[in-house]
Amino acid sequence: MKLREIGEDRLLGRLLPDLPLAKVVVHGPGDDCAVVETRDRRNFFVLKTDCVVAGVHFLETAKAGDVGWKAMMRPLSDFAATSAVPQFALITLIAPEQAKVEWMEELYRGLRRAAKRFKVSIVGGETSSTSGPVAISVSVVGFVERGRCVSRRGGNVGDDLFVTGRLGGATKQKHLQFVPRIAESRWLTKNFSIHAMIDISDGLGADLPRLAAANRVGFTVETENLPLTRGAKIDDAISEGEDYELLFAISPRERTHLQREWRKKFRKLPLTRIGSLSQLSSKNKQLLQRGYAHFQQSG
Amino acid sequence: MKLREIGEDRLLGRLLPDLPLAKVVVHGPGDDCAVVETRDRRNFFVLKTDCVVAGVHFLETAKAGDVGWKAMMRPLSDFAATSAVPQFALITLIAPEQAKVEWMEELYRGLRRAAKRFKVSIVGGETSSTSGPVAISVSVVGFVERGRCVSRRGGNVGDDLFVTGRLGGATKQKHLQFVPRIAESRWLTKNFSIHAMIDISDGLGADLPRLAAANRVGFTVETENLPLTRGAKIDDAISEGEDYELLFAISPRERTHLQREWRKKFRKLPLTRIGSLSQLSSKNKQLLQRGYAHFQQSG
Repeated sequence: MKLREIGEDRLLGRLLPDLPLAKVVVHGPGDDCAVVETRDRRNFFVLKTDCVVAGVHFLETAKAGDVGWKAMMRPLSDFAATSAVPQFALITLIAPEQAKVEWMEELYRGLRRAAKRFKVSIVGGETSSTSGPVAISVSVVGFVERGRCVSRRGGNVGDDLFVTGRLGGATKQKHLQFVPRIAESRWLTKNFSIHAMIDISDGLGADLPRLAAANRVGFTVETENLPLTRGAKIDDAISEGEDYELLFAISPRERTHLQREWRKKFRKLPLTRIGSLSQLSSKNKQLLQRGYAHFQQSG
Repeated sequence: MKLREIGEDRLLGRLLPDLPLAKVVVHGPGDDCAVVETRDRRNFFVLKTDCVVAGVHFLETAKAGDVGWKAMMRPLSDFAATSAVPQFALITLIAPEQAKVEWMEELYRGLRRAAKRFKVSIVGGETSSTSGPVAISVSVVGFVERGRCVSRRGGNVGDDLFVTGRLGGATKQKHLQFVPRIAESRWLTKNFSIHAMIDISDGLGADLPRLAAANRVGFTVETENLPLTRGAKIDDAISEGEDYELLFAISPRERTHLQREWRKKFRKLPLTRIGSLSQLSSKNKQLLQRGYAHFQQSG
């Protein structure tokens, strides 16, 4: 079997379950970030690696500074999903020998600009040549207070589902310039009990079924309520991906309070209730497994 | 200017000095590992990322399990150079869509086998497709006691230079099966005052000048004393690379004690005094800058 026939979720499913995990691992492979215990009694330690590859995550014609920005912000968006504080980053730059040093300097300016935005220190770098396209891998470590750590798991039937910002249309430009919702996530876990959270990188139609599957529940989405980017259609919001907005589950008892406080705190950023978690019916189960193709039928 | 014209050391020199470093960073970009302060008063936090790329670090015909082993052991060898204890690893796997899932499973078996050897937990993984060759990036984090942290800096004029194991001939097979000298390094810093240390990945002729340059000193090497792998020549030991042995500087006052205790502890692994750190003369300075080409003249 080949990689293109199996897809990332199933591949990781085959590669990861056997990994030996120390007892200190709170959330391991399969969640947005890895979360582990350390001698620090107040905080968990949080780790995430992610990469961007030319021709896959950006076009060869993209500005190097934008590529660096995106390479750093992708793992930071997973920190947002965990409500964690990023601290240190390591960069692996794999580039062909004919790559221009000026391009790489511009790339690093983008990486630095993104790191600075969230007070992350880039503490190490490694380069290698390749006969293929440019690839940049960024690993980030940081912490989250034990009581504020959020994962994909923890959602209950009946929970409201909220998304930050607007969906769709991100592949045009936003995917190179997005700002991870770390500030919003930190505010959420400081003031509310967030049951489960994920960042929408592959599109709501892929990431919501992942969130639901992690909780072994179904979901109902009111597609007419999806917050659309200007010019985007419902299908774009569901399947396009690259939004890097947060999707989270929270008790409906907190709905009114959350909506009122959010409007006061983040005036310019919408927060939208798009549906709720529901019982997992056999129909739902199939929908989850089949992902996007049948996404709208669950609404 | 292109990557092939500038080389890795000079490229990193151009990319890294501007990086904003938090005050908590003890050793940043340019050393074997990044070392930072945390709330843990006893230990420093240690980070390292490294990668292997098909056609650069291994041949396409290499066994997938060996490739996984090497991908994990390369950053662990930097932990050895820092005398740090590795704990957690993150894997980024970049592979073409036609890559076989069975190959990747074998790769992960190699990664796991290597991680298990040093009780490292693989806590996260990420995959991406590429139109180029396979690349595996491994990031490792761990700790080192504040009093046992070793870096390239700290060597003094007159220090003895020692290397572990044997040099040369590693590119045939050893580079895919080497065991990082973590146990040896941990023993060294527990029992002796190691002034400066580096792992020999690019060959003694590249890594010794780096160690000396970091200390702004020169060096004298008795090339006839180099511990050669069976069948290897002095030139191989100097320039071939991929040895992953340790090179360290220590006061000559500890020489006799070190050599006696080492023989008792590591019967099968040679420890060889190959020379010493010396005053940096103008001749030396040039030698260092020019690296391997004039390496033997300094002996």
